[in-house]
This record gives sequence, structure tokens and C-alpha cells, in this order.
Amino acid sequence: MNGIVVRNIRRADAAPIATLGRLGVATVHEAQGRTGLMQPYMRPVWRGARIAGSAVTALCHPGDNWMIHVAVEMLAAGDVLVVACSSESTDGAFGELLATSLRARGAKGVVLDMGCRDAHEIAEMQFPLWSRAISAKGTVKATLGSVNVPVVCAGTAVHPGDVVVADDDGVVIVPRANAEAVARAGEERGKREAASRARLERGELGLDIYGMRKALEDKGLKYIDGPLD
Amino acid sequence: MNGIVVRNIRRADAAPIATLGRLGVATVHEAQGRTGLMQPYMRPVWRGARIAGSAVTALCHPGDNWMIHVAVEMLAAGDVLVVACSSESTDGAFGELLATSLRARGAKGVVLDMGCRDAHEIAEMQFPLWSRAISAKGTVKATLGSVNVPVVCAGTAVHPGDVVVADDDGVVIVPRANAEAVARAGEERGKREAASRARLERGELGLDIYGMRKALEDKGLKYIDGPLD
Amino acid sequence: MNGIVVRNIRRADAAPIATLGRLGVATVHEAQGRTGLMQPYMRPVWRGARIAGSAVTALCHPGDNWMIHVAVEMLAAGDVLVVACSSESTDGAFGELLATSLRARGAKGVVLDMGCRDAHEIAEMQFPLWSRAISAKGTVKATLGSVNVPVVCAGTAVHPGDVVVADDDGVVIVPRANAEAVARAGEERGKREAASRARLERGELGLDIYGMRKALEDKGLKYIDGPLD
Amino acid sequence: MNGIVVRNIRRADAAPIATLGRLGVATVHEAQGRTGLMQPYMRPVWRGARIAGSAVTALCHPGDNWMIHVAVEMLAAGDVLVVACSSESTDGAFGELLATSLRARGAKGVVLDMGCRDAHEIAEMQFPLWSRAISAKGTVKATLGSVNVPVVCAGTAVHPGDVVVADDDGVVIVPRANAEAVARAGEERGKREAASRARLERGELGLDIYGMRKALEDKGLKYIDGPLD
Amino acid sequence: MNGIVVRNIRRADAAPIATLGRLGVATVHEAQGRTGLMQPYMRPVWRGARIAGSAVTALCHPGDNWMIHVAVEMLAAGDVLVVACSSESTDGAFGELLATSLRARGAKGVVLDMGCRDAHEIAEMQFPLWSRAISAKGTVKATLGSVNVPVVCAGTAVHPGDVVVADDDGVVIVPRANAEAVARAGEERGKREAASRARLERGELGLDIYGMRKALEDKGLKYIDGPLD
Amino acid sequence: MNGIVVRNIRRADAAPIATLGRLGVATVHEAQGRTGLMQPYMRPVWRGARIAGSAVTALCHPGDNWMIHVAVEMLAAGDVLVVACSSESTDGAFGELLATSLRARGAKGVVLDMGCRDAHEIAEMQFPLWSRAISAKGTVKATLGSVNVPVVCAGTAVHPGDVVVADDDGVVIVPRANAEAVARAGEERGKREAASRARLERGELGLDIYGMRKALEDKGLKYIDGPLD
Repeated sequence: MNGIVVRNIRRADAAPIATLGRLGVATVHEAQGRTGLMQPYMRPVWRGARIAGSAVTALCHPGDNWMIHVAVEMLAAGDVLVVACSSESTDGAFGELLATSLRARGAKGVVLDMGCRDAHEIAEMQFPLWSRAISAKGTVKATLGSVNVPVVCAGTAVHPGDVVVADDDGVVIVPRANAEAVARAGEERGKREAASRARLERGELGLDIYGMRKALEDKGLKYIDGPLD
Repeated sequence: MNGIVVRNIRRADAAPIATLGRLGVATVHEAQGRTGLMQPYMRPVWRGARIAGSAVTALCHPGDNWMIHVAVEMLAAGDVLVVACSSESTDGAFGELLATSLRARGAKGVVLDMGCRDAHEIAEMQFPLWSRAISAKGTVKATLGSVNVPVVCAGTAVHPGDVVVADDDGVVIVPRANAEAVARAGEERGKREAASRARLERGELGLDIYGMRKALEDKGLKYIDGPLD
Repeated sequence: MNGIVVRNIRRADAAPIATLGRLGVATVHEAQGRTGLMQPYMRPVWRGARIAGSAVTALCHPGDNWMIHVAVEMLAAGDVLVVACSSESTDGAFGELLATSLRARGAKGVVLDMGCRDAHEIAEMQFPLWSRAISAKGTVKATLGSVNVPVVCAGTAVHPGDVVVADDDGVVIVPRANAEAVARAGEERGKREAASRARLERGELGLDIYGMRKALEDKGLKYIDGPLD
Repeated sequence: MNGIVVRNIRRADAAPIATLGRLGVATVHEAQGRTGLMQPYMRPVWRGARIAGSAVTALCHPGDNWMIHVAVEMLAAGDVLVVACSSESTDGAFGELLATSLRARGAKGVVLDMGCRDAHEIAEMQFPLWSRAISAKGTVKATLGSVNVPVVCAGTAVHPGDVVVADDDGVVIVPRANAEAVARAGEERGKREAASRARLERGELGLDIYGMRKALEDKGLKYIDGPLD
Repeated sequence: MNGIVVRNIRRADAAPIATLGRLGVATVHEAQGRTGLMQPYMRPVWRGARIAGSAVTALCHPGDNWMIHVAVEMLAAGDVLVVACSSESTDGAFGELLATSLRARGAKGVVLDMGCRDAHEIAEMQFPLWSRAISAKGTVKATLGSVNVPVVCAGTAVHPGDVVVADDDGVVIVPRANAEAVARAGEERGKREAASRARLERGELGLDIYGMRKALEDKGLKYIDGPLD
Repeated sequence: MNGIVVRNIRRADAAPIATLGRLGVATVHEAQGRTGLMQPYMRPVWRGARIAGSAVTALCHPGDNWMIHVAVEMLAAGDVLVVACSSESTDGAFGELLATSLRARGAKGVVLDMGCRDAHEIAEMQFPLWSRAISAKGTVKATLGSVNVPVVCAGTAVHPGDVVVADDDGVVIVPRANAEAVARAGEERGKREAASRARLERGELGLDIYGMRKALEDKGLKYIDGPLD
């Protein structure tokens, strides 16, 4: 599937997307059974952004950002552009001018398995961007890729319209069909965590809160008085 | 030594620990003969923390943080939790709930040869944490490791009760028995550096301050007028 | 060329150096035909610095920073020290004392294909420094290298007197003889970008601004209505 | 989709699988439009194997090979076991005993995004195996994954029943539905390459055989007599 | 402990060393509870060697192999030289002349957390050598390290006199005091594996041989008929 | 210098080139003062080749091998093609068809800071090739680079006509003007090494042969009887 642009994609409802964004990457990843997380080399260009939106995907080739320009036209307000690359590349495929364009069209941010440049300007704009590298290396516009086809980005399969959640912990993908269920499960998880947090703050041990002592003993954990030296 | 928890460990005195923390990683590392430094991939989750404390060690397995929960109970006020892993893993073994628990128990921070998550929350808490990665990847609680046994963490041998010093430059380990001597040597070094700093600020050259010109000449260094092009 | 120090080098004029610094790395790199960029592992120790100056080069050996001390004497006001290493090393060859010395002598900053230490102090001093790593690992002063000879630093050839431009995007080298032409080309490019930025801010597409639609169609790009699922 | 084993999968026909295996990775990758290639860190444990077969997939967790044991039962003669891991791990999840088991059941080989061990014995058995590392590090059997679900292995999406082609160049995946078309396209490509090879052996230039001179001239390539020095 | 050479070390008995060598790295690593394995970047320069011997340790500095020359004198027949480095270095610290010297003194091989050179000659000599890299980069003889002190080599703590076992799977360290117990445990393990191998060759499943079905069911593994597509 | 092909280059004389090839990479690197070595990630596709020849250089862009086709026409018998890339790329820019073409034109081999493919066929042809990776990933022919301009390849500056020496230890560059002097120095070095080898084979120590004992003592090396445990 090379040289194809799919104009219309299905998106998840706004409500679960908003919930997933509020929950954040770590909780969402747990809530969907520890799946969907991109590799940890995906880092925010500036700290503190937290977004969720529908994936518009672009498949580029190393050293070439042509398909990003094509993808811009496919973005609706609230979307997140997800850029995959056909082989490893840190070249600076996305910079401040593209960020300006995406912001003008209402996109929430970019997840880019390539490099970005204009890091300073992007941070000043507070434009949310996750990438594998910062590099000023220029790219060409020479080879067709595709837009809104399924891609693998930073080790994770992404379909157009999947929900992208990104924050300082990285990027997680929730398949569109699961958005509501995962949002619900995440809210439950959040409540349980709040209860645990309150107990931990009082100095209670996770060993007791989570009831681990019996399982540890069954596995054979031995306590020795020490000191050994 | 798998499946063992040692309850009591010997710690260094509070005074040299405080001195080592004040001196910081670079000075301490030099003061003990350029040894004990962890590999430079160990990075603070947020910039500006500087801690020193007694090591409580945990040996975990990849993708599994069970022993961290066990180790929490062994922490005394002022300790630093040092987590090693039996093979390379960036999974998010430590997050905001564990940070809450450690803070409640008086621990000074964590040094983690695995990944951490909830990076944003940990930075907001100003909880000191050094790790090899930030990753939301969840971990299981399935395999026994050990607590308060000797470990290798980020390329450096750590015994329970050794002094851990960490700041923006990384992490250095001072064997418990050497804490006082290294603290003293570090203070001497700090004084010498202050004297050098004052001279360097006035524009004097290190070549002269450190008396290097003779050794360079003996080795055969040649000055050429130039320019060569 | 080992064990040589060249005292006098030719430098570019101050005016194009100032222009190149104002334009920044990404624009300069494009303006000279996408060449001269150092590898993206070169990162600023703190964010927000932007410098341009004439390169004074030092060739060191792994774990040894002797030639940096020799190079300090060769620095004139406005210079940038460029440190190459004869094989990969992250050892902390440059710290706060050297930064103090360089500042006293009017140097603008350092580009270091080794590690730096005293990261916190260097950030507080706002001393501009790009390096491949932060590491407290101490270095020795035992082996001769050279100063002001041609070097390869982070994958890029640097001659003494070349213009070094560095900011949050990385480091780019402009050969001395090209400084004026590249500065001029960069200013032209900056103007074109400003025009594009204004149009992108209004929501126009790069596809139209840059006239890409015809070339995409010629290459065979196909638009499909979708959705495909 | 965790904790699931799918018993029956659809496979491609034997004829295109055999053709794809004969063509080899580089030709198949080109024949399907330069897609489907796993990342180049996937290397054969011994040189010279070339296989093609239907993918039976297993999703494991770091340091845990339990699902490989589950997957063995799902293998039919001619299948290739494809093992993905939920995060990066080089632990030795596959060794000579598992190779013995797979051979007994008629499997053609293994593609493993983890480490393998018993490298010497596997080479002596001439059992085809591609992995990201060789490591004796033992694994546990503690955490459920899945078998015959879609996975991402070494950067490439793999569905159960897809055709896996592997040789000294790496591993490529052909979606089941495309097997015949890609096999045909690969045979055409092979014929064209044979014709080119004969001409190249006679000393003709690719510039002429592939008719590149005009395009190079149009792009502005300049020939200069030289020498420049 | 810098600048120290310890002349006499305790060694394990010859019998368990011989047994450990026969068992090989993967079995020994399992037999001592999955500990002691060096990181998997340690690779043999040529395939097929398998050795075991007593560790004589050397601690070098990056780009400097002086202490290897000092260590040679400490080697007894049957010893294995283990070279650690105070920070990461791939420089070629060991070549054919040193291999000649070690062979003349009866050493069994070298484990080197640096680079080696003369790879072709070392392979032709069939001199057993594991290293992190092959590199012709020359080293200096300028900085003192130590010989026969405890070191961390490729992530594993090594004491002088520990047993080093190395083969195509990598390198494992057995503490001297455990040599006999681990050798015995390894032989038991080898027998069990031989029994399993015979059953696996007949097509029996590990699921049945190792009795895994009940545990998988208890964890909740679900079998689905499929196919799903 | 983009889009330029220089037709004629100066080459070193055949005699020193032959000598350098016979001496091999490690000796040549030492003989020219430990300079000119490419980074150790450059590895031969098959073991045992040893070549020397005059560099014809090509500068490519990531994912694009067009300039290799242009460079073929510039190769004379005895030349070595050196391919640099404007940013990191492991894509398979060179395969069996190009090897056939180069062999037909008398080239001695290829040094490629990108990936190669058809690894099996290239090994069977015994075509000498050093690269940073093996990857079947196809490349395009879309962007101009240059031929016979100065490049940086794997961290080393290469000018057209420089002497390239490559073997199992890697690749070293000798500037054309130095070829004869380095060849002579290398032969001297070879003789000294032969003398040392004979003494080492008899069991003499490098400490004595190279006269190191005094320098070690002066630096403060201490011998302790031990054992320490």
C-alpha cells in the first residue's frame, strides 16, 4: 500500500478520547492490558504536554517528509498526526513551519518516528510533539508513501482513527473500537490508585495494601536478620 | 543469592554522608580515585536534585518490579533505594505510587537500572530519581529476586549500606568503609578547586596553574605559528 | 598530525558570523545545501543557548582532556572550542572549572564529542555547551593530541577558523570561505520562510504554497475516499 | 488480546511459499513495494539458511518464554514460529531443546525478537533461527501472553498465516493474501535482474542499462574534469 | 584500589573447573540460579571455542592497555585473563602479540570488556577471546590500573580466582567458593535435559513434559478455535 | 558541493598501496600515528578479505543509492569505492548486481557507511565489502549527491585518491601524500613486531621486552603478595 491517501477515516467519540487524555499514558497502557505502548525512545520535545486525539497516519521514507505535507490536508480538528518511517531515520522531518500549519488546522500534536527540528521554536509555541530525535538534518520531497493506511510506529501498530494518548511518559495507542472500554477501565483503575495513594501516604506498605506477603512466602522468599558483613 | 531479604544492614555515619552529598558526584568520584561511577546512561528524571544516603539494594528481573515492593519495608529514613536488574530492561518499574510510599517512609530517592514512569508527577513531587529510561511499560510481580544483597547497578558494584551520591552528573557509589576518608579527601579537593577557580576567573591559564608546560614539552608538543591555510 | 599546536588561524568576518548565529542551525544547514551538520547525538547541556563563533579545534584521546587545557590559550574572544576524540568516549572531559576559564577568556562556548560534567553548575552559569553525554567520569592528562588541526567531530569535518553555529537543534559547521555566501543565502531563506509562515498561519496548505500537487500526481499518488474499515 | 491461543489459522498455498523462499528476502521485499522487512538487527545465528513458511505467532513478555512452549503445539509442518516481545529483551528465550522440539514437529525455523542461546548447538543442528541477540540469560515461565494473534515483531506487523521469508539478509513478511501476487512479481523481477547481471558482467554500466543519464542531467548533475588537488 | 598488583590468588580445584567448561555457559548460568552472566554484547572473535579457567583480573582505563601487560606475569597455566575498563571503550587493547604471549604462558583465553584487534590472526591461532568489539584502534601505556582486584566486567562482578566459563553463548562467572556446588548442579541439570531431549525428539510437547497445562489454565489461558480472519 | 562528479583524481603509486595492503589495518593505523581508522561498526560481510586501493568517493543520502551508480563509471582497476551518507542509514544500498558491476570494472571492493544486501551472494562471490549493517531494505534513486569529493565516512575524512586499507579489523585511510612514508614506517614496525613475537613465543614478558618495569614503578605501581581473601 504505497502511494495511497485515504480521505475519510472513522474516529472514536469525543468523550472517551477526552477521558483517555485525562488519564494519561501509564494508566491507559495498564487499563488495556499492558499493550499499545510505543518504544521508550519516543520523547517529548518539551516536558508537560498531555494530549489525546484520533490518529491520522503517514508513512514516510528515510530522509523524506513529503507525505507529511500530504497528510496535513487530511487532519481534522482534534487529530494527532502519527508519522512512521520505512526504515530508521533521525532526519528532521518536522519543524516549526509544519507545526504552524498543523496548529492552524486544529491538530493536537504530532508523534513522529523520525527527527524534528526547530526544537526551541516548537517548545516556545507549546506545540505537542513526540519524536525519536532532535535533528536539523533537512529532508527531501521525492518518494511517495501513504496517508491513512495502517502503520507500525515506534514498534506499535497504528490504524487511522485509533486514539493516540501522549504525555511525558511516552505514547500509547488505543484501537478505536476499544476506546470506550479502555476509558472506563482506566477510570476504575484511577479510583483504585487514589485509594492506594492515600494509604501509601500514611506509610502503609504496598506489601500489605496489595496483599503480597502470602505469595512471596509461597514462592520461598527468605528473610535473614543480618547484617551480613 | 536469589529469594533473600536481609533485614539489617550497616550504614555509614550521618556526617560523612552529608558531606558527600554537599560535594556532589564529580568531586566525590575524583576524591576516591576515579572509581565507583555508574554508567552515564543513568539520568535524573528532573534536573536539580542532589542527594546522598545509604544504599538499600534490590535485585529485580526484567519486566518485574516485585522486589521493589519488598525493599520498601527495609528502608530507613535517609536511605536511597538502588535497583539492579538481572538483564537490560527499560520497563517502567517505578512510578508515582511507589514514590509516594518511599517519601512517606523517609527515603531520599531512587537509583533504578530500569525505567520509571509517571515522569511528570515525579517531577512535580520533586522526588529524586535516576533511571536508565522513562517508560510507561507496566511490570509484573511474578519472580523472586533479593533485597540487601550485593548487586551490580549500571556497571558499578553496590553493597547494602554503601553511600549513594547522585546529582545532575549521575550517580557514584562510595563503599561504606571509605565514606569518611573520601569525604575528607573531597573537602580538600573542593578547597583546591576553589583556589583554582579564583585564578581561572582572573584569566590565568590551567597550563600555568597546574604546571603543565614542562610535561607537555617533555612529551614533545610542538607549537607552530600558522596559519596553515 | 599529533602533538602539534597551531598558534594563529584565520577567522571569518564578524558580520556573517553574527548573521549565522541569528539564523540558527536549521536554516544555516539548509542554506548551505544540507551539509555540515553534526550527528544528532550532540545535545546542549541546557536548553535555549544559541551561539556562533570561530572554531578552535582540539583533538583529544579517550579518557584524556590534556589538549583542552592547551587549547584554552589559543582561544580569542568570540571563539568556540571544538573538541574531537580519536575514538568514542563519553568521559567527562570538560567541567565547570574549564567553563570558568573559557568565559574569562571570552570564548562563546564549547562543542565536545566527549562527555561533560558539572552539568548543574554549567547550566547555572549559562555557559553554552554541546556534548555527546553528561558524565562525571574523570579524565587524565597523559597523551598528546593536537590543537588547531583539521578534525572530524561528531561526523563532520571541522577546520580551524570554520564558523560553528549551535542551538537547541544541534551543531552545524560552515567552512570559513563560505561564511558570507551562506549567511546571505540564509537570510533569503529566512524571508521566504516568513512569507510561508504567514500563509500557513491562515490555514493555507503547504501542498498549495509549495506547489506540490502536480508532482504528487505525476508520481502516481492516488486518493481514495474511504473509510477502509 | 492477552491470554489467548487461536488454534486454527489460514495459511497461504504451498506453491507461492516455495517460490518466495527460492527468491529470497531482498527480491521479495522489492517485489512487494519495499515493505514488510524486519529491522536489520534481526540476524541469523548461522549463515546460509534460507526458509519460507507460514507464521505461527507468539507474544511473550521480557525475560519470559512461556508462550513459546504453548505455541509449539500450534505448529504444523512447514510453519515458522514468529516470537514478539512486549518490550525490548535480549534474554535467551529459545535454545537447543526448543529447537529439537520444533524440528520434531516439522517447523522450518524461528524468528525471535528476543535472544537465543545454545548458539553452537543450533548451528550444528543447522536449525534456521533469526534473533536480535545471542544470550544465555535464562527466562521464566510466569506471565501469559498469546499465540496466533497479530503481533509487531522487529518493527513489522505479522498476522498468523502470513508468509515469513528469511535468509542471510534478514526477514521479510508477506501478508497471506498477497503471497501469490508477490511470488509472481518476484519471479518477474528475478528475470529482469538476470538480464541486467549478464550485461553488468560484460562491463556495461548501470547508468546505461537502467537509463539514468537523462534524469541525472535533468536534476543538474555536473561533471568536472579534475583532479581538484 | 588503583595501582595495585596482587601476586597470589586462590583458585578453584581443577575438577569442577573442567566440569563447568564441559557443561557450557547456558547450563552453568541456570545451575547457579540464573546469575553471573556477562552482558550479551560480549562476543567470541571466532565461533566454536569453549573454555573454563580461573580469573586473573585487570582493570584498565579507556584507550590504555598497560595493565594487560602487567597482568600477563600473574597468569598461571589454565588461567583466563578478565579485562575490565573504567569506562566504555572499544579500543583495540589486545592483539596477536599479546595472544602469543598468553599462549606461551599457558593461559586459556581472554575476556575483554574493550576491543580486540588482529581478529584474523587470533582466529587462525584459535586463541579463545571474547570482547565487546573488534577495533584496530591503538592504545597507550600511560595510566595505572590494577591487577587481581575485584572488578565489574560487562555488568558482572568478578573476583580474582572466580571460575570463568565462555563459549558461543557468552561468558558466565562462577564465584570460586561455589564452583563445586554449581558443577554438581549443572551435571544434574544436564541429565534432566538429556531426558527431555529424547522425549522432545519423539515429538512430545514441553507442555506435557514440564507439566505446564495446569498452571496455564489456572492463570486463565483461553483456547479459541479460529481462524479469526 | 552537491551534484558534482569529478572525473579525474590523483592516485598513490602501486608499490606503497601493495605494501599497505600486505601490512593490514592494525599495523598501518599504528604506523601513521594512530590516525585514520574508521569507527569499529564497519564490519566485513565475510571474514578473511584484505584489500588496499585508491579511494573513489561517493556521497549518498539516506535511503538513496543513486550516486553509487554514478560512481561506478569513475572506478579504475584497483580502486576501492568509499560510500558516505549524509545522515545515518542502514538501508541496503549495495547488493550483488552492483558487486558484479564493480568486479567487471576491476574494483577491489567497497567500504559503505550504509547497509548492504545479498550478503550470501556477496560472500559466495568473495567480493570484499565492509558496511555498517546488512539490510535488504531497498533504496531509491531520487536525490543528487556527489562523486569524488571529500567525504566523512564512518567518522574518518576521506579524499579521493587516498589509500583505503581494509581487513577483518576494519578500515583505515592513508592520505595519498603519506602513502609511501606510512608504508615504510609500517614495514619497520612489522620487523620490530616479528622480533617481539619470537621472544614472546619463548615466554618472555612484554614488561621486559618493552622495558616497562621502571615506568610502572615510577608511577607508583605496588605489588602485594596476597591472596587478599
